[in-house]
Amino acid sequence: MTEQLYYEDVIVGDEIAPLVKQPTTRQLVMWAGAVGDYFPIHYDKDFAQSRGLPGVIVHGQLIGAFLGQLMTDWIGERGSLRKLSCNYKGMNYPGEALTFKGKVTKKYVENEHHYVECSLRAENSKGEKTASGVAIVILPSRG
Amino acid sequence: MTEQLYYEDVIVGDEIAPLVKQPTTRQLVMWAGAVGDYFPIHYDKDFAQSRGLPGVIVHGQLIGAFLGQLMTDWIGERGSLRKLSCNYKGMNYPGEALTFKGKVTKKYVENEHHYVECSLRAENSKGEKTASGVAIVILPSRG
Repeated sequence: MTEQLYYEDVIVGDEIAPLVKQPTTRQLVMWAGAVGDYFPIHYDKDFAQSRGLPGVIVHGQLIGAFLGQLMTDWIGERGSLRKLSCNYKGMNYPGEALTFKGKVTKKYVENEHHYVECSLRAENSKGEKTASGVAIVILPSRG
Repeated sequence: MTEQLYYEDVIVGDEIAPLVKQPTTRQLVMWAGAVGDYFPIHYDKDFAQSRGLPGVIVHGQLIGAFLGQLMTDWIGERGSLRKLSCNYKGMNYPGEALTFKGKVTKKYVENEHHYVECSLRAENSKGEKTASGVAIVILPSRG
């Protein structure tokens, strides 16, 4: 774990250190069991191809979870993730390196809480956006 | 559940009513999570083919579990499965109907328990034996 991030350390426009993940077919199988999502496009190649896909695809919810990890890694133990949304723009395939990025878009104080809002994106190995999202976090303040 | 089976109902040479199962890729994924066996030959078609298999194969342990179900269905609530062994003779593939069969080979009383021994086999849809096993059960007695 890196040093704790404080509200005062953050500037609008800052980019969050990207998170790189390479989900495997094994991780998709583990995810299926963990969340109970057994839709076969996530593990059955023949089924996926019968639906017009090139192969099995990563669960969208797992992409959302990686965006969550991007944020919780960034905000540290004393930060708090208050809101996370994710919109899927394209398919992700196991075995492919995915990069999760975030950018600070807003910061404000409300009811004595120090909020930071970030825009999020997932990119495939070609740099194409496959998901976007928004996160709102609360950071501790040095004040 | 059918009527309770008693030791006295059983004759050496009897065949147990077969159990037919058609495991799906979904069942293999659920099994992987349930037992923690994530070897990719059970869900990743490309990996399975890279190992010289025609496609993903059923977990051997799941075949053993079906043999166990054959026996516990047969012996009823008051019967007790004391020993179950399984030897794998061939591959089973998801989507294929598998038939599990048993035959009574021995019955004896020991320490006031009424034992029945059965030979077991799993057959693929071509009738080829893909697993064999032995079960020892205790049945209630009418005596």
